[in-house]
Amino acid sequence: MDTVLRQSKAMCPFLKKASPATLRALSTSTRPQASQCGGTISKLQLLGQRCPVMGKALAIQSARVGCKAPVPMARTSAVSGSRALSGHSRAKIHTSRPNEARAVDTPVFAARDSVQFPPAAPPSRKANVAAATTVPGDPDVKFDYTRFYEAELEKKHKDKSYRYFNNINRLAKEFPQAHGAKKEDRVTVWCSNDYLGMGRNPQVLKEMHETLDEYGSGAGGTRNISGHNKHAIELEGTLAKLHAKEAALVFSSCYVANDATLATLGSKMPDCVILSDSLNHASMIQGIRHSGTRKIVFKHNDLEDLESKLASLPLHVPKIIAFESVYSMCGSIGPIEEICDLAEKYGAITFLDEVHAVGMYGPHGAGVAEHLDFEAHQQGRPQGTVMDRVDIITGTLGKAYGCVGGYIAGSAKLVDMIRSLAPGFIFTTSLPPATMAGARAAIEYQMDYKGDRRLQQLHTRAVKEALDARNIPVIPNPSHIIPLLVGNAELAKQASDMLLNDYQIYVQSINYPTVPVGQERLRITPTPGHTKEYRDRLVDVIDEIWTKLNIKRTSDWAAEGGFIGVGEANAQPTQPLWTDEQLDIDHQVAKEIKASKPANGFMETLLERESRNAAQAASATA
Amino acid sequence: MDTVLRQSKAMCPFLKKASPATLRALSTSTRPQASQCGGTISKLQLLGQRCPVMGKALAIQSARVGCKAPVPMARTSAVSGSRALSGHSRAKIHTSRPNEARAVDTPVFAARDSVQFPPAAPPSRKANVAAATTVPGDPDVKFDYTRFYEAELEKKHKDKSYRYFNNINRLAKEFPQAHGAKKEDRVTVWCSNDYLGMGRNPQVLKEMHETLDEYGSGAGGTRNISGHNKHAIELEGTLAKLHAKEAALVFSSCYVANDATLATLGSKMPDCVILSDSLNHASMIQGIRHSGTRKIVFKHNDLEDLESKLASLPLHVPKIIAFESVYSMCGSIGPIEEICDLAEKYGAITFLDEVHAVGMYGPHGAGVAEHLDFEAHQQGRPQGTVMDRVDIITGTLGKAYGCVGGYIAGSAKLVDMIRSLAPGFIFTTSLPPATMAGARAAIEYQMDYKGDRRLQQLHTRAVKEALDARNIPVIPNPSHIIPLLVGNAELAKQASDMLLNDYQIYVQSINYPTVPVGQERLRITPTPGHTKEYRDRLVDVIDEIWTKLNIKRTSDWAAEGGFIGVGEANAQPTQPLWTDEQLDIDHQVAKEIKASKPANGFMETLLERESRNAAQAASATA
Repeated sequence: MDTVLRQSKAMCPFLKKASPATLRALSTSTRPQASQCGGTISKLQLLGQRCPVMGKALAIQSARVGCKAPVPMARTSAVSGSRALSGHSRAKIHTSRPNEARAVDTPVFAARDSVQFPPAAPPSRKANVAAATTVPGDPDVKFDYTRFYEAELEKKHKDKSYRYFNNINRLAKEFPQAHGAKKEDRVTVWCSNDYLGMGRNPQVLKEMHETLDEYGSGAGGTRNISGHNKHAIELEGTLAKLHAKEAALVFSSCYVANDATLATLGSKMPDCVILSDSLNHASMIQGIRHSGTRKIVFKHNDLEDLESKLASLPLHVPKIIAFESVYSMCGSIGPIEEICDLAEKYGAITFLDEVHAVGMYGPHGAGVAEHLDFEAHQQGRPQGTVMDRVDIITGTLGKAYGCVGGYIAGSAKLVDMIRSLAPGFIFTTSLPPATMAGARAAIEYQMDYKGDRRLQQLHTRAVKEALDARNIPVIPNPSHIIPLLVGNAELAKQASDMLLNDYQIYVQSINYPTVPVGQERLRITPTPGHTKEYRDRLVDVIDEIWTKLNIKRTSDWAAEGGFIGVGEANAQPTQPLWTDEQLDIDHQVAKEIKASKPANGFMETLLERESRNAAQAASATA
Repeated sequence: MDTVLRQSKAMCPFLKKASPATLRALSTSTRPQASQCGGTISKLQLLGQRCPVMGKALAIQSARVGCKAPVPMARTSAVSGSRALSGHSRAKIHTSRPNEARAVDTPVFAARDSVQFPPAAPPSRKANVAAATTVPGDPDVKFDYTRFYEAELEKKHKDKSYRYFNNINRLAKEFPQAHGAKKEDRVTVWCSNDYLGMGRNPQVLKEMHETLDEYGSGAGGTRNISGHNKHAIELEGTLAKLHAKEAALVFSSCYVANDATLATLGSKMPDCVILSDSLNHASMIQGIRHSGTRKIVFKHNDLEDLESKLASLPLHVPKIIAFESVYSMCGSIGPIEEICDLAEKYGAITFLDEVHAVGMYGPHGAGVAEHLDFEAHQQGRPQGTVMDRVDIITGTLGKAYGCVGGYIAGSAKLVDMIRSLAPGFIFTTSLPPATMAGARAAIEYQMDYKGDRRLQQLHTRAVKEALDARNIPVIPNPSHIIPLLVGNAELAKQASDMLLNDYQIYVQSINYPTVPVGQERLRITPTPGHTKEYRDRLVDVIDEIWTKLNIKRTSDWAAEGGFIGVGEANAQPTQPLWTDEQLDIDHQVAKEIKASKPANGFMETLLERESRNAAQAASATA
């Protein structure tokens, strides 16, 4: 082979200039996937195919051996560490990217990726290729794109992850009701992320109407080219104030905010390592992937696991701990303070996604981080609080704030750097003025008024208690999410369909890949608008469906020893994050109600009393 | 080394199970960047650092050699093809990722990446690291994040690419005027992408107001969980109809649409190669990068180059040709039909970004692809047209349609696959009902009415002609974009600042990295609202500024032999895409005006006549 290399070097201007190191670098394939011909195509092969001399020779050679991806030029001897392809049988070449590597690789570096995303290499490549080309392996036949699309869809149907969207039109004036495909059909929505009903808040709508009339329907450009305006400046100012940070930056969505920020930080900081909670949202997983940097997944909310992983890394290496405050599919809450402690100890920064918490927790609705120092923030003393210690907070304007868009908040330098470098921020049209104005109005409304999130929490408690009383398996958690364990994809979809079609109640079933197989669930999200009649009906209907479909109840799970917190014998009762005190439940009143052991249950009796008081207050004012 | 390996294998449960192939795979670094200690950290090293036995040993060893990223376990002999690190001096290790490889790599695989994005490895790593840590190379000192952010910002300031945003508040009722930071200060906007002024269209605003009142301010969920509604269904139906495709899918933005679609297709199709025009937008470049698949950049609008690259690839390999119809910074137009021919010949699919063209070209505003078969589409016969042949069309709702959001249109199977697989679509909140309703109203309005885009084209012609007459260098192109060549970053910013501060005219300067160094420009976008007084003033002011700042005129460029189409001696005159006939310019009238050689110029005289006719028609109706 040395002779071939020398001869090639003498003749080829490319080889003459290329060092062995260059050739070695070019011998790597950028993607871990074999070609249809059985071998991986390296960058060098691709270059070779485009060489005016070798390209033709290669084409002839490949036509002879029935394969269009042959070995170009003097690749083999210069490229150590990868198998020489020529002369090998197809089967042997096929093993050039060993499968064993993936088995070791996956749990360490990409735990949730395989669940959440199209894997880089399809699970069954052979089946895939066979389905996608008219004549499998025929190099003279064009790729059959339609058959490929069909094959991908077929996989989704087979593993029951194909999604059927429900046509739900939430009615601002009949919240929490919606209409279906027909305008006259009413549906009660029990799974929206408009947690507080801010989407129909009169102050938000007024602000949006006025802004629409004054500034029109769109921003008309990127932030750099005519899309920067007072609405953006004011919204970012409000967000910075909300989180007591120096600055904030608004994106098209929090998906984009997470993706762009993690990708930018991870790719720019030298040798950065991102430590990611195993239940992190898809947007963070994508951002980490797009950064191209190293990711270490730590067990969900497991401080010991996180610390051991932090401790294994050199102190001087930049590290980002990426996690959430409220995990939306199970309602668990991240140990923010303890993670800040670890970050400090090991020289990491914290990236906290408060998407499901902003508007919902804390005296000003800034999220769980604010909630943890309720009193201090109530009194306007953010210095030294947990929220103050978190480096980067990300949130959404599309859930509790009822609009659309996402953001980050942090130090002025950090925010300016992301503003200056993140393509997902730079090269996209700004949110419309009316959207930004509406979002700002929603945030300010919730900064001043705790009533909505308080009522939301009371309704959540009431629904959880009522379901518990009916032996319906609620996955326990301290937040506002009510996940009902079903544990089977078919059953979960059936239950959801039955709720919608037979009872006009909309609760979307959550199946793989959003949750692991076997943990399928119905995810219920109460709002301040879900008053007694809605809640009673929901609980009755779910009870009926659980019987009709013979879905396991809490006692059934308990008989099996319990599962993900449901029916576990020695489980500690979960305390809600919003304490009785924070919810302004009068302690004397609460004690009296509890002592009377009302037939209606504590929460319902309290809520009845609440609404009586509210009605009295209203009539007194009128 | 074999002895070490054997000993390690006997003792270590990990090594016992791991095959040589596994170890080889783990020896690769996921990112092409050296560690601060001078070597690349492989996955195996990272694992080693976390081994309870080896981790401690490695920490001690690295403390001794002053480096925290040492060689774990029996890595060296099992890992062929990568240099053994232990025993090597730091300088030698530092070369383990050869720079020569990049020099060859870049022009072929990542031509524009280095211009448009934070490169994976910073250009000057050493300087960077020194700036970012308190004591360079000290392994016991935590990474200094703030200094790192500062250093990144410093780079932007140094190369003049730091962006200062202008506070511009476009007023719906005074289009094309805006107010600045103070509400009473008026500015005329000449660089918005609300090309047709649809942002203040009464039908769009009416639809949005009504939808806001009926359905509230936000969608309240992802498309799968309570965010799917009639607005999405109707908008996607309208978009499919607009482009005469089976289906369409709406995203948060066209940045997300391009990114998500290319990343999904490229990562899922086996061995996919994406051929990308060298001037493609950042969103496409990111999508291709995120796909992890092979990218081949072809010269801007160069069919010969594209064909030679297509011909070099095996027929059966899936290929995507990604390109644009109107390139926004120079106004050039892609050869869509010819690219469709090549795609057919070589078994590729076409991915056409019509972001700057939808609403602006074609009898229904479907874009340049529609425009190419004006008559056929006018008569409702899309079969066999260029637009019909394009596989995937992407567009925006945020420019000519005046709202926000993006979309793809294509075959039902393709769209369903992207809907089912793209995380950027699945895991994000839907656009608000009012936004979708407003966008649909805008599209339908433009499908029925050509007047806005016709007037936009006439105003574009008038401005181009007037600037030409003043010897102001317009980069020639057949579209609605008017790029004025400045050729210097400082001057371009000065001109833009002077326009805004001294003359209340807003035209953003476009500098590196959006355009190459030396091609800095002012990008002007006329609208139907830029009537004679606005145009006259713009041309006068630009003429003044060109004199004041001593910016090169067309004749100056010509004296230097011409540059990017400006002042080139033998250049063919560029014909606008909208022909006189398509613009309904009465040929007899046009001839008469031309024959009279009016002092005002042809276009202005025609436009004067137009407005007289319009005024007469209006008074006749009244």
